Amino acid sequence: MELLEARIARDGVVLDGDILKVGSFLNQQLDVDFLMRLGEEIAGLYHAEHVTKILTIEASGIAIAVAAASYLHVPVVFAKKSRSANQSAEVYSARVASFTHKNTYEATVAREYLCAADRILIIDDFLATGEAIEGLLSLVRQAGAVCVGCAVAIEKGFQHGGDALRQKGIRVESLALIDAMSADGIVYRR
Amino acid sequence: MELLEARIARDGVVLDGDILKVGSFLNQQLDVDFLMRLGEEIAGLYHAEHVTKILTIEASGIAIAVAAASYLHVPVVFAKKSRSANQSAEVYSARVASFTHKNTYEATVAREYLCAADRILIIDDFLATGEAIEGLLSLVRQAGAVCVGCAVAIEKGFQHGGDALRQKGIRVESLALIDAMSADGIVYRR
Repeated sequence: MELLEARIARDGVVLDGDILKVGSFLNQQLDVDFLMRLGEEIAGLYHAEHVTKILTIEASGIAIAVAAASYLHVPVVFAKKSRSANQSAEVYSARVASFTHKNTYEATVAREYLCAADRILIIDDFLATGEAIEGLLSLVRQAGAVCVGCAVAIEKGFQHGGDALRQKGIRVESLALIDAMSADGIVYRR
Repeated sequence: MELLEARIARDGVVLDGDILKVGSFLNQQLDVDFLMRLGEEIAGLYHAEHVTKILTIEASGIAIAVAAASYLHVPVVFAKKSRSANQSAEVYSARVASFTHKNTYEATVAREYLCAADRILIIDDFLATGEAIEGLLSLVRQAGAVCVGCAVAIEKGFQHGGDALRQKGIRVESLALIDAMSADGIVYRR
């Protein structure tokens, strides 16, 4: 999606440690008019899939999920991150290792918000090693629901989480798919 | 706002401990079409105030802030909650006591995302004792910006945080303002 690549070229900053800083429009500061356009793009990609619900994870996935949901006219459910082992009868729960924060957390969703009849679209802002999305997929499976696919704003292709998901037959759509990046520039996969 | 009161009557659940559970449409599960209508209402209330930015706090404030921002066409900045004392030169920071979670956290925003020229609208899903909004107001003051007011979906008037803010001259708009609630019903302030 050229819109996002152009914005990354203008406002993104590549930092050491494979970090792409996009906090001025996609993370701590959210350019909502721009996000709505990304959401519209995602909605178009999954328009035919009869999505009943979007699943994301707090906090930075919520905004882009809401943007897409406003075009698909479906609810958003966001998994909570809890460091305590929050295993109870009332929640679906998956352990997720965070590459960014070098820790592990439980992603949980109250059982009442996912059901076997759901056709779930998973959305997040970033896809790198894929741990968060694997956790969300586990929640979908626990509910007996169908995952129609995933959509992310930025995929770090060089961390291979997206390819691992595709090899399992899961549809993954990335609005910007980065194959390599450094302070000298970014190479997108075409 | 009758729309929200009607939805609370249909889907809200009053629990012990002054808890109003609205997780099926306003918290863990977000009815985005409904949230967009709340956002439109908030945008209408602050339309004349030349808002340059909306400030909220992760995670549950983000969705309604994005909804309002999509009508006001301004960015959203969300404060992060960190348990560590994250005082550094790069962030504005305020200590917030959480009534709900019985703990204390630091609300932080990178300095680059708030500036003295900003006219800030503070948005959150709930206003009870007002601690979170007081923390956000502190961040606005640290940046030297102007707060044009606050907007929340649900104010628990019986916890008096909103009235304390109003007594300081801060404009507070609540789409549903609850003066009393129990399993028998909810009394709204008119």
